Amino acid sequence: MIDLEVIHRVQATLLERKGAAPDSSYVASLYAKGTDAICKKVAEEAAETIMAAKDGDRLHLVREVTDLWFHSMILLTQFGIGVDDVMVEFRRREGISGIDEKNSRNPQP
Amino acid sequence: MIDLEVIHRVQATLLERKGAAPDSSYVASLYAKGTDAICKKVAEEAAETIMAAKDGDRLHLVREVTDLWFHSMILLTQFGIGVDDVMVEFRRREGISGIDEKNSRNPQP
Amino acid sequence: MIDLEVIHRVQATLLERKGAAPDSSYVASLYAKGTDAICKKVAEEAAETIMAAKDGDRLHLVREVTDLWFHSMILLTQFGIGVDDVMVEFRRREGISGIDEKNSRNPQP
Amino acid sequence: MIDLEVIHRVQATLLERKGAAPDSSYVASLYAKGTDAICKKVAEEAAETIMAAKDGDRLHLVREVTDLWFHSMILLTQFGIGVDDVMVEFRRREGISGIDEKNSRNPQP
Repeated sequence: MIDLEVIHRVQATLLERKGAAPDSSYVASLYAKGTDAICKKVAEEAAETIMAAKDGDRLHLVREVTDLWFHSMILLTQFGIGVDDVMVEFRRREGISGIDEKNSRNPQP
Repeated sequence: MIDLEVIHRVQATLLERKGAAPDSSYVASLYAKGTDAICKKVAEEAAETIMAAKDGDRLHLVREVTDLWFHSMILLTQFGIGVDDVMVEFRRREGISGIDEKNSRNPQP
Repeated sequence: MIDLEVIHRVQATLLERKGAAPDSSYVASLYAKGTDAICKKVAEEAAETIMAAKDGDRLHLVREVTDLWFHSMILLTQFGIGVDDVMVEFRRREGISGIDEKNSRNPQP
Repeated sequence: MIDLEVIHRVQATLLERKGAAPDSSYVASLYAKGTDAICKKVAEEAAETIMAAKDGDRLHLVREVTDLWFHSMILLTQFGIGVDDVMVEFRRREGISGIDEKNSRNPQP
């Protein structure tokens, strides 16, 4: 399995860009345009993800999911949160689904 | 910074569920319903992400982004690919954008 | 060409349902659930429209666009506006684009 | 209540533009870009509709729903169908839901 630390490097870059001049990079310009512009990109990338899936084009699908994750990280960073909050949420859900041993022994419908 | 390995554990669970009976779990039932049903969930979670952002509700936003990532991982797994392919794509882009100078000298796969 | 008045009949029904008990109809229950629930349906129907188009399934596409228009009319009605406001906006744009010369001589409200 | 015939005039314009040179108008260029580009616009306008609703901005909401209907009409026209097919579908549903008794006695095509 691949090292996941690239996600933290992307997050670090997104944080760096937050203070930068709007014309210094694509990400900086998106922050400057504000929440609606970032949300619109998230919607666009979700639509492109769906279209790549409908085409059965796996290479395109990977690229669109990467774009979707990237822009959702920009959205989180816009609100002063980030990918670590998503990780905490994933772990909380593991806790919920894993702690309840009874459920794993007696699978739910 | 938080350990990112929870993503690999989620991926492992999604793979496990792929062979399971449709009524054994939410994820197994989603695989059985097929690509359109999974795509519809991706669209729904993107919409909910946008609405949480518009509300400025950071806790809700984290939960919706987690749902969005979770369902996009289900979609990838449906196509026999997964989160590692997204990581490879993120690393490829590091190389291209020159963000990580070391990576651009040692191009990623 | 077909009579378009069905749109006004749908609008009239949506207005009627607005005051009705939440459990009296699908539309009444959607009003009661509130703006987020209606918005979520608009997003869903847009996604299904896209998937029908990707399938090249014209019958399905017509049904999904009908669903999309129907739910966007529910959303308008939730805000005390309606399909006539959309017609006024279409007519205003005719004026602007000069497509309809008569309209540009007699500007729309 | 307002005259709905503007919808047929918009439809007529969309048909006219279908045969036109890609650089002759926005609509002609969208047809030339193809189904994915039109679908992407439908997704964008749905997202902007949702954001206008979340802002409670009624003027903006009307404009975004107009954009959404406009681009879904472009999508229909791309597939050789159009707004009349949506009207037939609305009338078929009237029959089914029994709202319009006359229609259920004289079933629509």
